[in-house]
Amino acid sequence: MRTNQWPQVAVVGAGAVGCYFGGMLARSGVPVRLIGRAAHVEAIAREGLSIDGLRIQERIPVAATTSIAEGLRDAGVILFCVKTVSTEAAAREIEPFLAPDATILSLQNGVDNADRIHAAIQAHAIPTVVYVAAEMTAAGSVTHTGRGDLIMGYRAGWPQRPDLKPLASMFEQAEIPCRLTDDIAREQWTKMVLNCAYNALSALTRAQYGRMVQSEPVRDFGVRAIAETVAVARAEGVVLSEPAVVEAAMVLAEKMTAATSSMAQDIARGRPTEIDSLNGYVACRGKALGIATPVSEILVAMVKLLEESALKRRPMSSPANGLS
Amino acid sequence: MRTNQWPQVAVVGAGAVGCYFGGMLARSGVPVRLIGRAAHVEAIAREGLSIDGLRIQERIPVAATTSIAEGLRDAGVILFCVKTVSTEAAAREIEPFLAPDATILSLQNGVDNADRIHAAIQAHAIPTVVYVAAEMTAAGSVTHTGRGDLIMGYRAGWPQRPDLKPLASMFEQAEIPCRLTDDIAREQWTKMVLNCAYNALSALTRAQYGRMVQSEPVRDFGVRAIAETVAVARAEGVVLSEPAVVEAAMVLAEKMTAATSSMAQDIARGRPTEIDSLNGYVACRGKALGIATPVSEILVAMVKLLEESALKRRPMSSPANGLS
Repeated sequence: MRTNQWPQVAVVGAGAVGCYFGGMLARSGVPVRLIGRAAHVEAIAREGLSIDGLRIQERIPVAATTSIAEGLRDAGVILFCVKTVSTEAAAREIEPFLAPDATILSLQNGVDNADRIHAAIQAHAIPTVVYVAAEMTAAGSVTHTGRGDLIMGYRAGWPQRPDLKPLASMFEQAEIPCRLTDDIAREQWTKMVLNCAYNALSALTRAQYGRMVQSEPVRDFGVRAIAETVAVARAEGVVLSEPAVVEAAMVLAEKMTAATSSMAQDIARGRPTEIDSLNGYVACRGKALGIATPVSEILVAMVKLLEESALKRRPMSSPANGLS
Repeated sequence: MRTNQWPQVAVVGAGAVGCYFGGMLARSGVPVRLIGRAAHVEAIAREGLSIDGLRIQERIPVAATTSIAEGLRDAGVILFCVKTVSTEAAAREIEPFLAPDATILSLQNGVDNADRIHAAIQAHAIPTVVYVAAEMTAAGSVTHTGRGDLIMGYRAGWPQRPDLKPLASMFEQAEIPCRLTDDIAREQWTKMVLNCAYNALSALTRAQYGRMVQSEPVRDFGVRAIAETVAVARAEGVVLSEPAVVEAAMVLAEKMTAATSSMAQDIARGRPTEIDSLNGYVACRGKALGIATPVSEILVAMVKLLEESALKRRPMSSPANGLS
């Protein structure tokens, strides 16, 4: 493939994940349009997208818009990067502007987004597992602190198209490692395990991964959440080695000592979290499948209370407080 | 007793609890000196102590100082209201200024403050169980949202002096219900159970008591924390009825629907919490006594991480974040 052969790429939900991958693609010469919030779009139009990270510190000129219609014009590839709470809503928003042969890559957490997109608009999205630590730290600015790679594969039982190799090449030439797999469900559940181990606990304690695993009771609680997730995955037909994923979780904490979870960021910003797609999905499927998930359940319940508290942001000056 | 017979009262650690009880005493004519932080002391010197609450909305003229020496001058009664993390330090600070016949009332959470004060300065403090919902909402201003009563009694095996009846009368005439008991340990553990049920969960979720008990998994987790606390109390010789204390906890949440815990306030203010004296004490004694306390342990571990995070207050603008 030559540069002028890259398809037009639209990033739907250009937050940290979308801006990082969209920005890296744009930097490599791929035509990209970011669709995001006005504050980011305005800053990017004015000064380009700033990526401050491990590999690069650059301002990247890239098209950005708040308009779905404009963002999706001529798009052959859509990076679908919205939070999982918005999957159906965003799918319905893009539906009227989707070219018949457009490829939707779901760069989302959880294991059921492709199903949910299909149920909403009958499109066959390609599940794409994302490993990246990134955060929007200012308007039009993404800070990148870890990894930045993708795993793509066809969903079992769905059409095996389009050919994913050219897409993988497009990412690779943009310095985005992209592995193809014939077992994407296993990759989704492997990532799911890591999210279920850390995201909720990090949100509740505001703690960094390194500190969390140094606390024996917290580490043990995370390991129990992993065990429940592995049990539900197995009942769903995805057999993971529990010792291997526990080990992977510990390695993650070692590598990303200073990291906090995206869920912790959501809480800090008073935004809805992805808990329903993570431990909430495990608890829900566990219930349906007759698998006990007590740790997942309490984590979900606590995060939902915290989320509600953070959304309310009850001012400190009008408290109603409890027994001392 | 006539008004001019009331002893001089010193409030050590005049936060919300100290200001509420000290203020109510001063309002009734008892000579009171509050010893507290400069910001509160200055506001109280300028405009009096503001109590905004259930019973009264008043500004009360009351002496206030940052000086332990000045505050304790001629004090016959000391309301010892410091957070349990400061028990030994505060005891040592007041020791040089204590009159030989001064009575120390420990208006603190937890069950071991009298022991700790005795170990630190060989004084026999009177355990005093506090039921009040109050918060410092501005310099020199306490907002009072629930109860405001005391239970006092001699510690078993210690000298049964001074006579507590005149002290109870002093509180009662100041509209502070004050019950005397010959089993203060039972009262301390009863309050302990409520603190162990709600304080940590409210701190972690920032949730109000009413919302917490509406969440079945969170309510169940709280009930398990209660069961562990009751088991440790029993091993310590205090037999509580588990159904009765669970019921009391539910009634508390009904009565104080909109309340959050003092631990939630500590976290919000970036201050150390009392976790070591509450669920932490239960976990620690449980370990020594061979009683399993898994819920207490995980609550303690999570609160300790949260406390560390809140103390640090890592600025949002320099994040290091985890996998999305």
